[in-house]
Amino acid sequence: MSTTIALDAFGGDNCPAVEVEAAVAAAREGLSVILVGDRDRLAAELARHDLHDIDAAGALRGLPLRVHHASEVITMDDTPSKVVRSKTDASMPVCFDLVKLGVAQAVISAGNSGAMLACGLLKFGRLKGIDRPAISASVPRPRGQCVLLDMGANVECKPINLVQFAVMGAIFARTSHGVARARVGVLSNGTEEGKGTELTRAAHRALSAHPSADFSYAGYVEGKDIFKDRVDVIVTDGFTGNIALKVMEATAVAFAEQLRAAVEERTLSKVGALLMRPTFALFKQRLDPDTYGGAPLLGVEGVTIISHGGASPRALLNGIRLAGQYAARDLTPALRLAAQAHKDLFAAAKREESAS
Amino acid sequence: MSTTIALDAFGGDNCPAVEVEAAVAAAREGLSVILVGDRDRLAAELARHDLHDIDAAGALRGLPLRVHHASEVITMDDTPSKVVRSKTDASMPVCFDLVKLGVAQAVISAGNSGAMLACGLLKFGRLKGIDRPAISASVPRPRGQCVLLDMGANVECKPINLVQFAVMGAIFARTSHGVARARVGVLSNGTEEGKGTELTRAAHRALSAHPSADFSYAGYVEGKDIFKDRVDVIVTDGFTGNIALKVMEATAVAFAEQLRAAVEERTLSKVGALLMRPTFALFKQRLDPDTYGGAPLLGVEGVTIISHGGASPRALLNGIRLAGQYAARDLTPALRLAAQAHKDLFAAAKREESAS
Repeated sequence: MSTTIALDAFGGDNCPAVEVEAAVAAAREGLSVILVGDRDRLAAELARHDLHDIDAAGALRGLPLRVHHASEVITMDDTPSKVVRSKTDASMPVCFDLVKLGVAQAVISAGNSGAMLACGLLKFGRLKGIDRPAISASVPRPRGQCVLLDMGANVECKPINLVQFAVMGAIFARTSHGVARARVGVLSNGTEEGKGTELTRAAHRALSAHPSADFSYAGYVEGKDIFKDRVDVIVTDGFTGNIALKVMEATAVAFAEQLRAAVEERTLSKVGALLMRPTFALFKQRLDPDTYGGAPLLGVEGVTIISHGGASPRALLNGIRLAGQYAARDLTPALRLAAQAHKDLFAAAKREESAS
Repeated sequence: MSTTIALDAFGGDNCPAVEVEAAVAAAREGLSVILVGDRDRLAAELARHDLHDIDAAGALRGLPLRVHHASEVITMDDTPSKVVRSKTDASMPVCFDLVKLGVAQAVISAGNSGAMLACGLLKFGRLKGIDRPAISASVPRPRGQCVLLDMGANVECKPINLVQFAVMGAIFARTSHGVARARVGVLSNGTEEGKGTELTRAAHRALSAHPSADFSYAGYVEGKDIFKDRVDVIVTDGFTGNIALKVMEATAVAFAEQLRAAVEERTLSKVGALLMRPTFALFKQRLDPDTYGGAPLLGVEGVTIISHGGASPRALLNGIRLAGQYAARDLTPALRLAAQAHKDLFAAAKREESAS
């Protein structure tokens, strides 16, 4: 079955120009995309790309791209409940409807991430057996990537949530990064048993006591292990994960800026920097969040990619590619299966929780 | 009054060689240091520095350096209770005793940080009005530094703890970094009011409702604000703070390694890198944790500096200098005064806590 991606054309800070540019580029690569949002504004934006022939069904001649009209827009101020209850014809929730109708197989938006979470939960529904979905990020390493979750869907977590994140992260690492049997760690303030919080200790006990066929549990890990080839997946609550991810991004930016400032201070360094320019460019690309494009929301009944508001056309294009890959590689069915296969682990984690 | 620093000579991974080297360097700068630990082993180590003349009182001729015997050593496996109850003649607790006796004015150790916390609490005692001490880190920025606390003394915190960390951080920023009236933020997963956890929201309410003469409250901050000139102090629980600090260090190391690898890939880049070498060296020094040397434990009745186990002689020397500065600038009395001056804020924060 070919895969079609529903793209919320009114999500990002520079919508719909960025979305349309990304969608056109994706369609030119042969990816099937539906641009969801105000038909007239999208027609005007598509005309800038010399795409004038939108037929009555919203299809564009010659490209696997079409427009699906939605009359409203979700803003950053809309509460999740408002999104679902009263803005039913907004571009974001309509994307989810298109997947439910079988017209598309994945959703991507650079809009309000709380609203994306609400739509994922209420339109797609939770995966059976998973209590809370999680936002996953993949940090590039010299070899492979490190999957981090949760990056902010759940600011307060229970041990069962971390245990389920471990299972979902392992399946995601297999589907997305080709890791046959992921090594999974729990993020903590030290690797010794006594470290961590009540939350991490209970998750650690459950994961230690119940081995899984789908992943090996590596115990507590620290911040440095994100960049080492020690684990493939790191689980944490959404508060800590969100802060860790933002600190990581901010440190990389600060490092690059300080390096640039240091280079400016010396003439010979400037010459050196000129010679190093291609290296810096390569390096920047490796670290650039745009290279990755979007974070999947794992644990809902459909492929859902959350991109950031400031995403560039290139970032969104990469997000569309990812959405297509996840749908084509059957990420959701694999997660559904794993949730069932780990019923005993989840039951044990819940017993652990009520015992403590 | 001149300031003397009690240095635990058996704390770090390479003790006592590193400690002796740092102490000798500090004494040669005119700083007064007491090396605490096994007298014979210290005499042997000092002999390598051509310092043979230790008199019966432990003093060395010609340098403000002396040895104070302690028969035992705290290991990384010693529990805090063991340290305080049964290892009473270990080098670490003896350092604290020397301060209590008025012989020294500050303690520094690269040993077991849990044991340092226990000694600080039980030998020095908590500052009146402060419920829990915090470990503080100072992150260098192009202009000034950002004080982060708690970096790991308290993995689980209450709102009152974060409020007290705000006061202590502000006083520390003034005493140590010359910031007249610090801007203080609470670390969160977003800057909007609704973000954060129960803990951060309660601390945010208390700090918003009760202005202080000693600092201005700037609300929620994110990871990126560590590197921006937006706040001078960031407070968080010790679990999140420890992870944020380690992620920051790990990202800087990973960035540097990937840059080096990228340089190696291209000949012209190698030439460029040669020309840039002095810049890299300057840059490395700015980021090198050794430049800072140790983290003060704020909230106990005496200057206590926790250095890391792998500290180099240069790091420990910097830690000794810091310890001397904090003692000379009356950090502890300033914190004591501030705790009293903020009684109303603390009472309000506790009411906030019991109401929620």
